[in-house]
Amino acid sequence: MQIADKIFGSRLFMGTGKFSSNQLMQEAILASESELVTVALKRVDFDKNEEDILQYVKHPGINILPNTSGVRTAKEAVFVAQMACEALETDWVKLEIHPDPKYLMPDPIETLQATEELAKLGFKVLPYIHADPVLCKRLEDAGTSAVMPLGAPIGSNKGLKTFDFLEIIIAQSVVPVIVDAGIGAPSHAALAMEMGADAVLVNTAIAVAGNPVKMAVAFKMAVESGRMAYEAKLGNISSKAVASSPLTAFLDEQ
Amino acid sequence: MQIADKIFGSRLFMGTGKFSSNQLMQEAILASESELVTVALKRVDFDKNEEDILQYVKHPGINILPNTSGVRTAKEAVFVAQMACEALETDWVKLEIHPDPKYLMPDPIETLQATEELAKLGFKVLPYIHADPVLCKRLEDAGTSAVMPLGAPIGSNKGLKTFDFLEIIIAQSVVPVIVDAGIGAPSHAALAMEMGADAVLVNTAIAVAGNPVKMAVAFKMAVESGRMAYEAKLGNISSKAVASSPLTAFLDEQ
Amino acid sequence: MQIADKIFGSRLFMGTGKFSSNQLMQEAILASESELVTVALKRVDFDKNEEDILQYVKHPGINILPNTSGVRTAKEAVFVAQMACEALETDWVKLEIHPDPKYLMPDPIETLQATEELAKLGFKVLPYIHADPVLCKRLEDAGTSAVMPLGAPIGSNKGLKTFDFLEIIIAQSVVPVIVDAGIGAPSHAALAMEMGADAVLVNTAIAVAGNPVKMAVAFKMAVESGRMAYEAKLGNISSKAVASSPLTAFLDEQ
Amino acid sequence: MQIADKIFGSRLFMGTGKFSSNQLMQEAILASESELVTVALKRVDFDKNEEDILQYVKHPGINILPNTSGVRTAKEAVFVAQMACEALETDWVKLEIHPDPKYLMPDPIETLQATEELAKLGFKVLPYIHADPVLCKRLEDAGTSAVMPLGAPIGSNKGLKTFDFLEIIIAQSVVPVIVDAGIGAPSHAALAMEMGADAVLVNTAIAVAGNPVKMAVAFKMAVESGRMAYEAKLGNISSKAVASSPLTAFLDEQ
Repeated sequence: MQIADKIFGSRLFMGTGKFSSNQLMQEAILASESELVTVALKRVDFDKNEEDILQYVKHPGINILPNTSGVRTAKEAVFVAQMACEALETDWVKLEIHPDPKYLMPDPIETLQATEELAKLGFKVLPYIHADPVLCKRLEDAGTSAVMPLGAPIGSNKGLKTFDFLEIIIAQSVVPVIVDAGIGAPSHAALAMEMGADAVLVNTAIAVAGNPVKMAVAFKMAVESGRMAYEAKLGNISSKAVASSPLTAFLDEQ
Repeated sequence: MQIADKIFGSRLFMGTGKFSSNQLMQEAILASESELVTVALKRVDFDKNEEDILQYVKHPGINILPNTSGVRTAKEAVFVAQMACEALETDWVKLEIHPDPKYLMPDPIETLQATEELAKLGFKVLPYIHADPVLCKRLEDAGTSAVMPLGAPIGSNKGLKTFDFLEIIIAQSVVPVIVDAGIGAPSHAALAMEMGADAVLVNTAIAVAGNPVKMAVAFKMAVESGRMAYEAKLGNISSKAVASSPLTAFLDEQ
Repeated sequence: MQIADKIFGSRLFMGTGKFSSNQLMQEAILASESELVTVALKRVDFDKNEEDILQYVKHPGINILPNTSGVRTAKEAVFVAQMACEALETDWVKLEIHPDPKYLMPDPIETLQATEELAKLGFKVLPYIHADPVLCKRLEDAGTSAVMPLGAPIGSNKGLKTFDFLEIIIAQSVVPVIVDAGIGAPSHAALAMEMGADAVLVNTAIAVAGNPVKMAVAFKMAVESGRMAYEAKLGNISSKAVASSPLTAFLDEQ
Repeated sequence: MQIADKIFGSRLFMGTGKFSSNQLMQEAILASESELVTVALKRVDFDKNEEDILQYVKHPGINILPNTSGVRTAKEAVFVAQMACEALETDWVKLEIHPDPKYLMPDPIETLQATEELAKLGFKVLPYIHADPVLCKRLEDAGTSAVMPLGAPIGSNKGLKTFDFLEIIIAQSVVPVIVDAGIGAPSHAALAMEMGADAVLVNTAIAVAGNPVKMAVAFKMAVESGRMAYEAKLGNISSKAVASSPLTAFLDEQ
């Protein structure tokens, strides 16, 4: 799969929040075989101390995607993206603009504006948004590199509550669709991939699992499985039963 | 996982109906790495002609589970099980008693009675049933080797429509629980495993896929993924958002 | 609607458990305009003291339906039905046989057997059952007067978790179908009626409401609304949007 | 319920599209007892011929809410609102801006901008929007009189597919929340009201029903039922069964 000018072998992207330790986070990321890992710029220690989160994320084959978590406006987001660009030497940015402190829902207006400005500045923008089909098309016009619609509120583990709208988004999109937020189990990730999403971003479900490293592997497999099913084409859902086994009363025939 | 006296490395069981050719069925079965494959006794060619379905299923490491599909009563089921025992040299039988020609729903009364009789005769009985928690306990008392509650009508691909009842069945069961019928996508199989089901049986979803062999692999991975997630323990579902990334307005602090 | 030889003007049946007082229960029942109210025989005070629950249920136009709640076998159920018949002078009985103390799921085997015996004795039997389409047909053969499939576990307020199976039951039944257990809100009751159920039985959702009398009225209206919608025929569900308002860009035309 | 400076006795708002005749539409509107009816300005015949839709909608007690259906930008919407104001002598307008011809999803950016401009001009604005909680708050800041989040794509009859987001919107809103689009059955309308929505707007489900007049009455009752249930407070949903009837094995005690 390609986003902007980069090709990814894995369709599982990972977040870095909520792990009980940086060490455990690192193990889970490596186990997931993810090639794109997002880090809140706020968490980066610019004095590069030993406990700097970046020390645990930097690996060959892993792209670091700084995110703007914590900002409330387009202006703040552009500023943070520029800081990230300088600090991490990347022009990729995950845009997260959520003025709402309780449900952390993204702001469609500020997000579109920040996308326009950052795209003009040459950034590769991956905006986190509500599963709003029209907003997705407007982000394309604004030069976004992908869209990242939510499945359910961040950290809720509720799964694809926006299913009906993700279907429309996927059908219409000309940029990659990455389902972000709400994915709480491998079955949710598999479902997103079966629908034709290009990738998923998972964080909470892995970080808070009993065994995050094992859960990371479970997600890796689910994403691959869902993608294969999409490529192999699922059968139709029917409301009548259709016997798998022939049903004539064969005893009569013996 | 163990059923009766047999240990299985794979938790994906497969059916053999609806494939467009025996050759394709064989490839899909091998790709799935399933170790238990069910065959309707009716389809077995006792004259052992070249096109006999069994020629395509018999492989080292694959157990053949004859099923009674097509019977309508306990009496017929016992008779067919005995025929199967003789013809296939196995005392395992998948009990399918569905008098209903349209929705193919199983008959709880005949199924319990046949299970009792067959268990007394020394059979290892795996009954296909509605997701009825009390019936499951009664089947245990009758000596069943496993229970096979349905997720949705056979061949419907609708997924786990019986979710709330499967939860109860799994919580209460002392024999393995194998979710049978209705599983239409790898995400459904993963969900069943995440809930703690011991195995799933898939047929239609693989047989009618655009590419059955690839779909078989997708199911294999989904089942393993779901099982790993179950073992690694999923986090709770919450109705409030909980930020993966820290949310304080860090710009103020810079 | 007719069950056995009785005609009912209301399709809302009520239970009598869990109310905070008999007085409140009485007010809620009267407000609901229900014509069929079920009472656990166990709760009937045969010494006819002042606080006997029956004093609060007996009203012109209300039929009392004794239920066998608390029994675990067909034999016990038949005995309780006969006691009820003598004590309450009715040959109607709601059969509830649930050996399972935690989820209170009904026993299909004992229920069918008790239905057969009671029907032969001339009882009008209304059995509470799992939403099992084949069991429903067997109960018809046994002489049942109606079937009462559950929507979700008793007292769970979860709604119609058995939706896909209720659809099949309703399509196939020749006796009235009364959805029992799990209905937790008027919208659930409306949905059951829209599907074509003949009636619903509600208890917990009314008894534990903040204002049970007002909630009883809400259920009464929802049941009538759902029935009217069934009769008026709902439109199809479509996955594409279809504009209610004409969509041509009329500004161009002005 | 109050919106802007008007008080409404009915919480059921109606649309006027898709009816097979104006006469039938009129009967359904009157049967619904709705006090707010929306009409696409495009459909208004400014030459006031006999077949003008307005002749069928104008009744004492019914407020006509012109809508901007067919426009694609804020600029067009403002222009149409002004035309409507002149033609219909009302400063109320339902804002519908959907550039997308297939799914008719509303545009969040243009809708916010039009709301700002129209509110400044003194209009009472009721914008049709995606169920986006942040957008709803921004519309409040822009001076909206209500928010009209969709339940599902217009005309789909799919119900409240945005349930999880409507919950957040309702919890946070300081203006009335009117669920618009997707409501396909009285049970959906009852559910919206039970959640605490202030009103619902229904069109397709009534217009395409087998009997639109009867369906209008069904919706009227469902809306009242759902509102009563909201006021009477529903009980909690639990995953364990809780017996409505006492469950001790009373036979032992007799």
